[in-house]
Amino acid sequence: MLEQLKQEVYEANMQLPKLDLVTFTWGNVSGIDRKQGLFVIKPSGVPYEELTPEDLVVVNLKGEVVEGSRNPSSDTPTHTYLYNHFPKIGGIVHTHSPWAVAFAAAQLDIPALNTTHADTFYTDVPAADALTKAEIEEDYEGNTGKTIVRTFKERHLDYEATPGCLVSQHGPFTWGETAAKAVYNAKVLEVVAEEDYHTLQLTRANSRLPQYLLDKHYYRKHGQNAYYGQDNAQSKTHAKRK
Amino acid sequence: MLEQLKQEVYEANMQLPKLDLVTFTWGNVSGIDRKQGLFVIKPSGVPYEELTPEDLVVVNLKGEVVEGSRNPSSDTPTHTYLYNHFPKIGGIVHTHSPWAVAFAAAQLDIPALNTTHADTFYTDVPAADALTKAEIEEDYEGNTGKTIVRTFKERHLDYEATPGCLVSQHGPFTWGETAAKAVYNAKVLEVVAEEDYHTLQLTRANSRLPQYLLDKHYYRKHGQNAYYGQDNAQSKTHAKRK
Amino acid sequence: MLEQLKQEVYEANMQLPKLDLVTFTWGNVSGIDRKQGLFVIKPSGVPYEELTPEDLVVVNLKGEVVEGSRNPSSDTPTHTYLYNHFPKIGGIVHTHSPWAVAFAAAQLDIPALNTTHADTFYTDVPAADALTKAEIEEDYEGNTGKTIVRTFKERHLDYEATPGCLVSQHGPFTWGETAAKAVYNAKVLEVVAEEDYHTLQLTRANSRLPQYLLDKHYYRKHGQNAYYGQDNAQSKTHAKRK
Amino acid sequence: MLEQLKQEVYEANMQLPKLDLVTFTWGNVSGIDRKQGLFVIKPSGVPYEELTPEDLVVVNLKGEVVEGSRNPSSDTPTHTYLYNHFPKIGGIVHTHSPWAVAFAAAQLDIPALNTTHADTFYTDVPAADALTKAEIEEDYEGNTGKTIVRTFKERHLDYEATPGCLVSQHGPFTWGETAAKAVYNAKVLEVVAEEDYHTLQLTRANSRLPQYLLDKHYYRKHGQNAYYGQDNAQSKTHAKRK
Repeated sequence: MLEQLKQEVYEANMQLPKLDLVTFTWGNVSGIDRKQGLFVIKPSGVPYEELTPEDLVVVNLKGEVVEGSRNPSSDTPTHTYLYNHFPKIGGIVHTHSPWAVAFAAAQLDIPALNTTHADTFYTDVPAADALTKAEIEEDYEGNTGKTIVRTFKERHLDYEATPGCLVSQHGPFTWGETAAKAVYNAKVLEVVAEEDYHTLQLTRANSRLPQYLLDKHYYRKHGQNAYYGQDNAQSKTHAKRK
Repeated sequence: MLEQLKQEVYEANMQLPKLDLVTFTWGNVSGIDRKQGLFVIKPSGVPYEELTPEDLVVVNLKGEVVEGSRNPSSDTPTHTYLYNHFPKIGGIVHTHSPWAVAFAAAQLDIPALNTTHADTFYTDVPAADALTKAEIEEDYEGNTGKTIVRTFKERHLDYEATPGCLVSQHGPFTWGETAAKAVYNAKVLEVVAEEDYHTLQLTRANSRLPQYLLDKHYYRKHGQNAYYGQDNAQSKTHAKRK
Repeated sequence: MLEQLKQEVYEANMQLPKLDLVTFTWGNVSGIDRKQGLFVIKPSGVPYEELTPEDLVVVNLKGEVVEGSRNPSSDTPTHTYLYNHFPKIGGIVHTHSPWAVAFAAAQLDIPALNTTHADTFYTDVPAADALTKAEIEEDYEGNTGKTIVRTFKERHLDYEATPGCLVSQHGPFTWGETAAKAVYNAKVLEVVAEEDYHTLQLTRANSRLPQYLLDKHYYRKHGQNAYYGQDNAQSKTHAKRK
Repeated sequence: MLEQLKQEVYEANMQLPKLDLVTFTWGNVSGIDRKQGLFVIKPSGVPYEELTPEDLVVVNLKGEVVEGSRNPSSDTPTHTYLYNHFPKIGGIVHTHSPWAVAFAAAQLDIPALNTTHADTFYTDVPAADALTKAEIEEDYEGNTGKTIVRTFKERHLDYEATPGCLVSQHGPFTWGETAAKAVYNAKVLEVVAEEDYHTLQLTRANSRLPQYLLDKHYYRKHGQNAYYGQDNAQSKTHAKRK
C-alpha cells in the first residue's frame, strides 16, 4: 500500500538527522496521496537509526490508522488538521531544530531580513499564538494545527508562499509540495533563524526587507517568470546565449 | 562481578563523546545495582578512546572501592551521596557540557521556556548554591552532592520529575532510571540550555511555560496516561484505528 | 575548451561545501582566462554532489554563454560586471555563509578588529548599499556588481588589498588572483565575521586595528617584503640561519 | 637530529586541526630540548595535510635555524623569546582559535568563571597589551613574546600555574611541560573562552571564582596533593578502598 510514497517519506525522514535538524527522535515527516486521501507518517518515538520504510504508518484524513502495526507520531492530529486545511500541500515536517525553537520560545516571528529568507519564504515566518489551557486540555495536537491555520487566516498569509510557521513555546512546522520539499523548507527556516538571531544582536535598526526585494527573490525562484535553476520557465531565456 | 552492569555503564560512558557532551576526559557515568548496593563508575582521567569495560570500578554505598585496580572518578563521593539520597535513581552523569556550564557559571536556573524542556524536565532545572569555603575544604566532592540534595529539598522538587541539577560555578549533573537514561537527560539538558540562552538574548519579556503546558508535555511522555512512543500505556488508544 | 580552467573552477566550487561555506546550492565560483576574455562558472541550482567539470558553463565578458548545455548561475551578470571592472582578478566567489550574511543583513561593515582579518583584508570589509527599487527591477544581478564597484570607488578602496565585499540585505562576494584564492578569501571573511560578531558583543569600546598593525600584517604576507610562508621574497632572509 | 622530539612536535601540530583549533595554516607548535638548547618548530605556511616530521625546523635559542631546508614559522622569534624567559616550559602553541581571538580583539582577560577553567588555569588568563607602533616596526614577532613576559611580571603571575596568555588584537599563546601539554592547554583555553563569552552575556553580576575554589580545583590536579587521574601522588589514597 502506497509503497512509493512510503519510500519517499522514509527518505525525507532520514534527511532530518543528516541536515542536523533533529536530536534523538524529535522530528517527523509525513507525505500525502491526495487522490486516495491517505498520508504516510513516521511512527512515534522510533530512533532514526532503526527506522525502515515498513515502519511507516498510513493514516486517513480523519486521523485514523488504516495500515501499520506501529503507533503513528503523537503529532499525527496536527498533520491531519494541516492536510485538511491547506489542500495544496503534499508533505509536512515538524522538528525541534534549536534556532527555530529559540524564536518560538521568545514568541517572535522570524523576520525577513535577508535574501536567503526571501528565496523560500515570501513574508516573515509567523509565530502562531501559544495554545490556551482549554485548547491544550481538549485536543493538544489537533489544536496545534488549528493555531497555525488561524494565524495564516488572521494575517492573510498564503500558505504556499510562506511554507512554514512557528508554534509559540513549541517549535517549527514546515510544509511543501512534497515531503522532500518540506524538509528543504525546514532546513531553510533553521538557517534563517540562526542568521536573523545574529543580525538582531548586531542591530535592531534595520527593518524587514522592502517588498520589492521580497518580490524579486521570491519570483526569481517561483512562478511563471522564475529563472533560477535548470528547469524554470524563463531560465533558458535569462541565460543569454551568443 | 556485575558484568552486565559494567557493560551498560561502559556503553553509557561511550555515549558522552558521541553526543558531544565531553572534551577530553571531562565527564563520567555511573550505574547502580540497588539489590547489592554497589555501583560501577568510570575510572579517573582515563581517555574515552582507551576505556574498556574492565577499567570500570565497583564502589559500595560508603564510597569504598570493592573491585577494580583503577582509581574511580574523583567525583565518586558526589555519586555516592546522590545514590544514598535519591533512592530511586539507577544512573548518574556528570559532564562539563559548555551550554550547561555557561548557566552554572552565571548561577542561573535553566528556565522551562519550551516544550523540548517540558518533555524531560517538569520544572526549571535549578542551579544549586555554590559551595562555601568550609564545604570545599571539608569534603569537596561529597558536599557537591549535598548542595544538590539540599536544593531539591528547599525548593520542594521531585528528583524523578526533574532529573538534573546545575552546581553553581561548576556544571551539570543528571540522573535517571538507568545509566543510559541519565545520559539521555544530560543531552536534553545541554540542548535546552543552548536554546534558552538564545531565547533569553532575543527577549526576557516572556516568562516560563504555564503549568498546564508543563503538565501536558510531561505527562504525554511519563506516567499512566503517557501516549508518546510505542510502549506507553495509552499509546495504542491514542492512535485511533479505523 | 578551457579544460584546465574548468578543472580548477570545479575544484574551487567543491571546496565550498568542504569549508562549510554553503547550504544546498547557495554558492558559486567562477574563474577567468583573461587572454581569451572568457570565464567558467557553476551552472544554476545544481547540487554539489552531482556537479562534474563538464557541467560548467563558459561565458564571455558580455555575459553571453559560449559553451555548455546548462544554464549558468543566475548570478552570472554579477560576475560579468566584476570581471569587467576589477581587471586584475582571476576568480570570484559568492556564498550565503551565515556569519557574513548576518553582517550584510545588519548593513554593517566587517570591521578590522584582529590580525586574522589583517592578514587577508587590508581594511574593513565594506557593506555595499542595498539596491534601490529601480536597480532591482532594471537588472538585479548586474546592479549587484555595480553597487560593489561603486562602493570601492566611493571609499577609495583597492580591490586587490580588500578582496571582498558584502552586499547589504544579501551576502558576501570575494575574489582573488585565482578561483582557489577567492575561495580562501571567502573562508577568511566568514571566520572574521564570526570573530567580530563575538568581539562586538563583548565590547564596543575598542575601535579598529591601528593602521600600523594593518600595515604590518598585510605586508608580512603580501608584496615585495613579504616573509610569511616558503615562497615569499624575503622569507629566506627573515629566517636567520646560523 | 632530535628525531624523537620532531615526532612529538609533529604529533602535537597534527592535534591542532583534530581539536578544531586551526583554520588553514593558522597555528604552530614547537617543543624544546633544554639540554641541547634547541627547539623544533613547524615550518611557515605548510598545510597540515602535507606536513611530515622531516619538514620541521630546528632552531637555537638565538632564533637561528640550525637544521632544516624549510623556513620556520614566522612566529619563531616569539617562541624564542618565551623559551628564554620561561625556563621551565617544554612546548609552545600559537593558534587563532576563534573564541580566544574574540577576547583578544576585545582586549579582555578570560576571567576564571568556572571550574573547567580552574582545573588548568589558576588565575584569569591575561590579555597582554597590544604592541605599540615602535614595537611592531622594530621586531614584531620578538616583541610579541616580550609583551607576554612583561604582562606576567607586572601582574605577578606564575607562568607554570597560568600556562597561557592572549595578545591583544591578535590571539592566544599557550605553553606546557611538553608540546602535547601545550596543545591540551590551547584547547582548554578555547573551551573556557567560549563558556565565558556565554556566561558574560547571561549576566555580568557574578565575579570571578573565589580563591578557595581556584585553589581546590587547581591543586586537585597539580602538585603534591593532586588526586585526579591514575598517577597523581594522592590519587590512591583519595580513593578509599575497603
